[in-house]
Amino acid sequence: MRHDHIISPKQLSREDIEEVLDRAADIAADPSAYGDRHAGKLLGLLFFEPSTRTKMSFTAAIKRLGGDVVDMGPVEYSSVKKGESLADTVRVVEGYADALVLRHPSEGSAKMASEFVDVPLLNGGDGAGQHPTQTLLDLYTIRENAGLDDLTIGVMGDLKYGRTVHSLAHALTNFDAHQHFISPESLRLPRSVRYDLHEAGATIQEHTELEEVLPTLDVLYVTRIQKERFADENEYQKVAGEYQIDAETLEAASDDLSVMHPLPRVDEIDHDIDGTDYATFFEQAHNGVPVRMALLDLLLEDDS
Amino acid sequence: MRHDHIISPKQLSREDIEEVLDRAADIAADPSAYGDRHAGKLLGLLFFEPSTRTKMSFTAAIKRLGGDVVDMGPVEYSSVKKGESLADTVRVVEGYADALVLRHPSEGSAKMASEFVDVPLLNGGDGAGQHPTQTLLDLYTIRENAGLDDLTIGVMGDLKYGRTVHSLAHALTNFDAHQHFISPESLRLPRSVRYDLHEAGATIQEHTELEEVLPTLDVLYVTRIQKERFADENEYQKVAGEYQIDAETLEAASDDLSVMHPLPRVDEIDHDIDGTDYATFFEQAHNGVPVRMALLDLLLEDDS
Amino acid sequence: MRHDHIISPKQLSREDIEEVLDRAADIAADPSAYGDRHAGKLLGLLFFEPSTRTKMSFTAAIKRLGGDVVDMGPVEYSSVKKGESLADTVRVVEGYADALVLRHPSEGSAKMASEFVDVPLLNGGDGAGQHPTQTLLDLYTIRENAGLDDLTIGVMGDLKYGRTVHSLAHALTNFDAHQHFISPESLRLPRSVRYDLHEAGATIQEHTELEEVLPTLDVLYVTRIQKERFADENEYQKVAGEYQIDAETLEAASDDLSVMHPLPRVDEIDHDIDGTDYATFFEQAHNGVPVRMALLDLLLEDDS
Repeated sequence: MRHDHIISPKQLSREDIEEVLDRAADIAADPSAYGDRHAGKLLGLLFFEPSTRTKMSFTAAIKRLGGDVVDMGPVEYSSVKKGESLADTVRVVEGYADALVLRHPSEGSAKMASEFVDVPLLNGGDGAGQHPTQTLLDLYTIRENAGLDDLTIGVMGDLKYGRTVHSLAHALTNFDAHQHFISPESLRLPRSVRYDLHEAGATIQEHTELEEVLPTLDVLYVTRIQKERFADENEYQKVAGEYQIDAETLEAASDDLSVMHPLPRVDEIDHDIDGTDYATFFEQAHNGVPVRMALLDLLLEDDS
Repeated sequence: MRHDHIISPKQLSREDIEEVLDRAADIAADPSAYGDRHAGKLLGLLFFEPSTRTKMSFTAAIKRLGGDVVDMGPVEYSSVKKGESLADTVRVVEGYADALVLRHPSEGSAKMASEFVDVPLLNGGDGAGQHPTQTLLDLYTIRENAGLDDLTIGVMGDLKYGRTVHSLAHALTNFDAHQHFISPESLRLPRSVRYDLHEAGATIQEHTELEEVLPTLDVLYVTRIQKERFADENEYQKVAGEYQIDAETLEAASDDLSVMHPLPRVDEIDHDIDGTDYATFFEQAHNGVPVRMALLDLLLEDDS
Repeated sequence: MRHDHIISPKQLSREDIEEVLDRAADIAADPSAYGDRHAGKLLGLLFFEPSTRTKMSFTAAIKRLGGDVVDMGPVEYSSVKKGESLADTVRVVEGYADALVLRHPSEGSAKMASEFVDVPLLNGGDGAGQHPTQTLLDLYTIRENAGLDDLTIGVMGDLKYGRTVHSLAHALTNFDAHQHFISPESLRLPRSVRYDLHEAGATIQEHTELEEVLPTLDVLYVTRIQKERFADENEYQKVAGEYQIDAETLEAASDDLSVMHPLPRVDEIDHDIDGTDYATFFEQAHNGVPVRMALLDLLLEDDS
């Protein structure tokens, strides 16, 4: 790993990404070979906002490598309440751990914090900013199910505010992927993101209806449309309903389609899909463990 | 262990119970022999409501077996707040762990959740439902102190709402136990529980005063009478006082009497009993560790 | 270690202190030699009020010794909410762990709790009472940077309410230290503390301005002046500003001066000092790990 810290998916080249995904695949194939690899190593968890999935899977990841965590706990119980700066907090906590995971509501906080510490720092999500380990586990899941090259992917739902979606779209520009974006007019990709993707050479198309592209897709990545985005509840109800999928919707899809979702879902994906071969979202969540193990393994082996 | 999940004490036969208690006794006799037995195994903790004792003793249990935990943390900080269903949560978390403990306020939730996962799930209490590991540690404590057969036990306090008491009473029908139930009229065993016990062939008697049966008891199991159960504070004060015990109360008891309590206690058992040979309630709490180690050991050894 | 529990710095003789600091130095020199020393040992964490630093560094300490923790979690989620006494809580939890750390808002609670348990109990701060591990890590930091004998130390800020300062001042009476206390008139050392220090043979002087003594100091220990101590916000602003230091302030100091602070700081120490050789406060925080490892090591080795 040629990086000291993992801050943004944008810092990762195709080569970097493949290094992580290859390591993750190796781990998934034989986890026990890694079970003692970082015995005695401690991962500091600094979660300034809640996150079940990211926190639990980082915890599982370091423990599956033989290490352990030192957790700051909920911010309500921390010295942050006494007015301590983030820079001070990370400088203290790096003395307790061999690497840090930071989740913080302020965009740019992970980058800033990384400049104050000598141990590897991993961004576990910085508000409207980046969430690189989510992007890597998405890429890993796509690679395992459909391959990253010669890929046709549809991304549907809230494309305006969805950090997850923007990061994934950008990361896919490293590969030979055709990206379709499906959303209501009011929630389409922001102009700046579209510009970035064009600059990076992406092949993208926008749609307001799934049925136009569904049959061509290898992967359908669904995200939640949040009620809070709409001033008018009726408007929300009408729009949201059009971007929910169920078994009937998927009758027009390829048999090999993989349906992904960053979870938690509310009602974007009907439960009648859960038991089908389309459902890839639980596997996707589970992939958080080998992918985070891979990242930690690469960072800690360089560090020792 | 012939069960995949541990949901209710009612699913356990005499043979099942003895398998767990024998293993627990073996562990208690030589804990270090088990110290590495499940190295690398992770127990997922899903506590949707608070529980100091159950959570800490499950944590100690898996760690004393060489394993570790992955904890969802307080539900206020989890993705449940974002509207995720319990079925989705357990399906995600089973990817992070080798077994799960679920505590949840809704009766029946553990059974439901167990139908969605492949790893062993242990019910850590489901509201007004079941709490099988509490029952097993109660049985273990009784067996160690008085034996389970040819037992005369008195159960005193709130017999109407006490889940702990109902489960224990039912489990004791597997053994040759004579059960006395001592409570104010308003808090006696519900008719449905009495019916169940009769159906299971239990020998039970009900009393409003302890002194009638105290001299005959091998075990006195005390539970708390909660103020909230009474509309009238005066009524509560009068009733509660009659079901509190102290050293003077126990002058009429057998020297071999064991006093148990699921804890926490408030003032049902006076502190002047703490230092006596009667006091078995701290030992009872401590038995949570070997009993939960035994259960985890039996479930994980089958699973691997 | 001739003590069963660590309750107060006042219980520690010069010999006791040196035993801990020597062990800490040995650990810091070669941590990996201690990495497996207490494998399988569990440290019970009972934090009845928040504490990031103390909790995280105790956690790191036991894990760096090969052990692990069993954490009660935030008191809002514990059975304490059900009215359980502290004596009962510690008697239950000692069954889950090989040693306990207690932090509690009530002065005297650690001493009281220690009388109910057989496992070693360490006071992690008891309100206005004692915080012995903070004192020990302060002493260790002073010894590493300036030596404890022939020491000239200035302690500045809130000397009236600062528990940390009182404990450190008292502990330094075991060594050949000259202590200067610098504070506004309204926040000077309480008469009772001054009396104690005189009784213990301390050489102390009080000042209202730092500049009088700064050039003579080996160590400057800064503490925060809390706004809440002043009825009048203007009064606070005036006073607090006079006891803040920056690079300019330190132009009059010795090149070997070490600036310490128990952290978190707000604005008592300007960030322009962070990168200088004066800044010893992050090192001080990090020293919490080897010092707590040393204490745990000494207590657990006696215990086994």
